[in-house]
Amino acid sequence: MRVTVHVTRRPEIADPQGKAVSRALADLEYHNVREVRIDRTIHLDIDNDDPEEVHYQVDRMCAEVLVNPVLEDYVAEIHT
Amino acid sequence: MRVTVHVTRRPEIADPQGKAVSRALADLEYHNVREVRIDRTIHLDIDNDDPEEVHYQVDRMCAEVLVNPVLEDYVAEIHT
Repeated sequence: MRVTVHVTRRPEIADPQGKAVSRALADLEYHNVREVRIDRTIHLDIDNDDPEEVHYQVDRMCAEVLVNPVLEDYVAEIHT
Repeated sequence: MRVTVHVTRRPEIADPQGKAVSRALADLEYHNVREVRIDRTIHLDIDNDDPEEVHYQVDRMCAEVLVNPVLEDYVAEIHT
């Protein structure tokens, strides 16, 4: 079963990667770019056809490895 | 104007970050995860209300900074 996990930094948490890109764009004279934020999307292929079990497993994997719960939020999308 | 750029690694290009996460999941006994790929989503806020100009600028910024054209593809979404 295919799963997409959208991981976003919480709005109140600074995004150093986005800030670095923002500075690079300003150096190239793109002065009208007000903000850059960079999120990640994790695509998983899980060998299990039960959406409920997959959802439970994905939540556990997010808590253990995929997401930093202090800085980030996530939404998991199960493609049934 | 808000823009979202979805950057994906080409399917034939290896994804070292995804591979590392895959190994970490296997170490934690998640042996049913067949593949992990990690993409990034770039959110930009651009001070310009003309969608055509914004599209043109985003394409230039992707070519110059945001995307590695050898390894990656992208789709830009302009939120009008």
